[in-house]
Amino acid sequence: MAVSIEILQTSSQTKARLGKLHTPHGVIDTPVFMPVGTQATVKAMTPEELQAMGAGIILSNTYHLFLRPGHELIAASGGLHKFMHWDRAILTDSGGFQVFSLGDMRKITEAGVSFRSHLDGSSLFLGPEEAMQIQMALGSDIAMAFDECTPYPSTYEYTKNSMERTTRWAERCLKAHHRDAQAVFGIVQGGMYRDLREESAKALTALDFPGYAIGGLSVGEEKHLMYEVLDYTVPLLPSAKPRYLMGVGSPDCLIEGVIRGIDMFDCVLPTRIARNGTVMTSQGKLVIRNAEHFNAQGPLDPECDCYTCRNYSRAYIRHLFKAEEILGLRLTTTHNLHFLLNLMAKIRLAIKQDSLLEFRAEFFAKYGYR
Amino acid sequence: MAVSIEILQTSSQTKARLGKLHTPHGVIDTPVFMPVGTQATVKAMTPEELQAMGAGIILSNTYHLFLRPGHELIAASGGLHKFMHWDRAILTDSGGFQVFSLGDMRKITEAGVSFRSHLDGSSLFLGPEEAMQIQMALGSDIAMAFDECTPYPSTYEYTKNSMERTTRWAERCLKAHHRDAQAVFGIVQGGMYRDLREESAKALTALDFPGYAIGGLSVGEEKHLMYEVLDYTVPLLPSAKPRYLMGVGSPDCLIEGVIRGIDMFDCVLPTRIARNGTVMTSQGKLVIRNAEHFNAQGPLDPECDCYTCRNYSRAYIRHLFKAEEILGLRLTTTHNLHFLLNLMAKIRLAIKQDSLLEFRAEFFAKYGYR
Repeated sequence: MAVSIEILQTSSQTKARLGKLHTPHGVIDTPVFMPVGTQATVKAMTPEELQAMGAGIILSNTYHLFLRPGHELIAASGGLHKFMHWDRAILTDSGGFQVFSLGDMRKITEAGVSFRSHLDGSSLFLGPEEAMQIQMALGSDIAMAFDECTPYPSTYEYTKNSMERTTRWAERCLKAHHRDAQAVFGIVQGGMYRDLREESAKALTALDFPGYAIGGLSVGEEKHLMYEVLDYTVPLLPSAKPRYLMGVGSPDCLIEGVIRGIDMFDCVLPTRIARNGTVMTSQGKLVIRNAEHFNAQGPLDPECDCYTCRNYSRAYIRHLFKAEEILGLRLTTTHNLHFLLNLMAKIRLAIKQDSLLEFRAEFFAKYGYR
Repeated sequence: MAVSIEILQTSSQTKARLGKLHTPHGVIDTPVFMPVGTQATVKAMTPEELQAMGAGIILSNTYHLFLRPGHELIAASGGLHKFMHWDRAILTDSGGFQVFSLGDMRKITEAGVSFRSHLDGSSLFLGPEEAMQIQMALGSDIAMAFDECTPYPSTYEYTKNSMERTTRWAERCLKAHHRDAQAVFGIVQGGMYRDLREESAKALTALDFPGYAIGGLSVGEEKHLMYEVLDYTVPLLPSAKPRYLMGVGSPDCLIEGVIRGIDMFDCVLPTRIARNGTVMTSQGKLVIRNAEHFNAQGPLDPECDCYTCRNYSRAYIRHLFKAEEILGLRLTTTHNLHFLLNLMAKIRLAIKQDSLLEFRAEFFAKYGYR
């Protein structure tokens, strides 16, 4: 099997688990946060910088790479790893999330989704077979099944029909997939409806994927709803296989997700807010453009030992943002990724020491629950 | 003396000289190219990256730092070196070039220049005393005298009056300056008029500056005119002091400048064209957005050993530019700075081996004369 998880320890307090994710491009400690490299680059970072921060796996987007530069070019370049100079693991999404987000510019049928490119308006099609072909060409370590991420809120009927189609698409993905050094993960859908989640999980586990994602969360619902869905959905997934909560990356959701048994996360949040000048610190979020930092000689976070915090003052970083200098984006992106990767390392240590609930209480006492 | 040059060797073929520039922040091999960090950052680079490329001195802009974030903040932050986390040498210009470029937004008097900020339109004033105060607050290793860089073309009368005022301003700069760990360089003006250059050089050398710049070149004149001015101006400067040709950075001008006895150069060219997707290679310039590079698996320059050329294909860098990714700017900036710093290292070696004319012939046979 191309990808598997080895569970080293489980929490006695929660459903959290400490593990090692084995992939064709290395072994990754779990629970893990995967930085997002949408267009074959984690924005503003080099691969070496990500590695120095301890990133062992990143996510890249099938939709974007399909449109530009095209998966054929990437295959001709020796695959995505070689193309982007990243020799650790890569997970690619299926493109489903992006094409469904196109609204009026897409049409869903049983075959798949017809849509117009957001770049040049050209007519394109993506279905389960195409999603597999593209991801096989990219050569990621983990490919995701082609699914519909139902919006929130959605009616029971819409969610049920969509989930059943996602299940049929999952079968077609497995049939179309033939690349040994790549695993395909199934994606449980079913919105906020418990019986639909149960039905989805049952049908997908019967297909025996090497890993499972929970999709359709972090789509605008209140957080307690997300946690409720995780509470009843995670136990339906095989404990011997990796579990991935898609699109989640705020500190509270990472901790609560781990507590509910999730092994893998991804989110554009830390890199996106960084480019907007917002950083996560041990004392909560900080907006570097604010006037209060004009003459602030201290680092972004006094408890942080990242490259940015070791070498630069808030006053300087604020200046870089006011002056629209590229180094500003680099420094905040470095800090935010370090912050989340370091948070995951602390979470793993807390699982090991069986003190995850204490860790959560301590963390949120300083950070605030958000 | 805060700054001095030690001449190790002179070329028997040309006026080129190999030296060591001693500054309060290190010793720099000359002839040297200084990357430009206009707003207290060399665009897209970290200080560590510049150091790894061998940069020992950078230039920063008094006008920009005066406007934003203000020299008081930088002084309160411990000076420009500490503010921007750069512990090697810094040369600051005087702000003159930028305020004179403001056209209708500035007014020149004997006292100095009244102008409006390009950021918020506020009324400001910069004269010799202010330029010294600001540069003393910044704490650069080399401060430049406040001068007018006369545009090209300018009449004899305008150029003469301007040059004479620049000389009076130079005297006021020396009077206003009192910072031991900082040298002030005088700037020879006089446009394309030989007698005015002679007059300027004579008056300024009488003031005994620790170093001299040649200003008012690379302002739109044809290159043979620049070389002519260098031919007759450089010999008027004291051979025991550093000579700096301002605003020059294309490979041909660097080589021709060194041949005429110049020790120091600066230019935004390599970093600016890099952000536009143009790179300098051993075979000449290359525009990475061009369709011909779509599937180009080779590096920007097969003869280059910079970080970019060791790790990335032209196809990938082209993709980054088409997708407007920050990493694209980082990779081309890295390459262009490496290219020019490496060119200077080769020039120094050629002086040492007394084969500079042969080096020039070989270089231009491949690069093209531009």
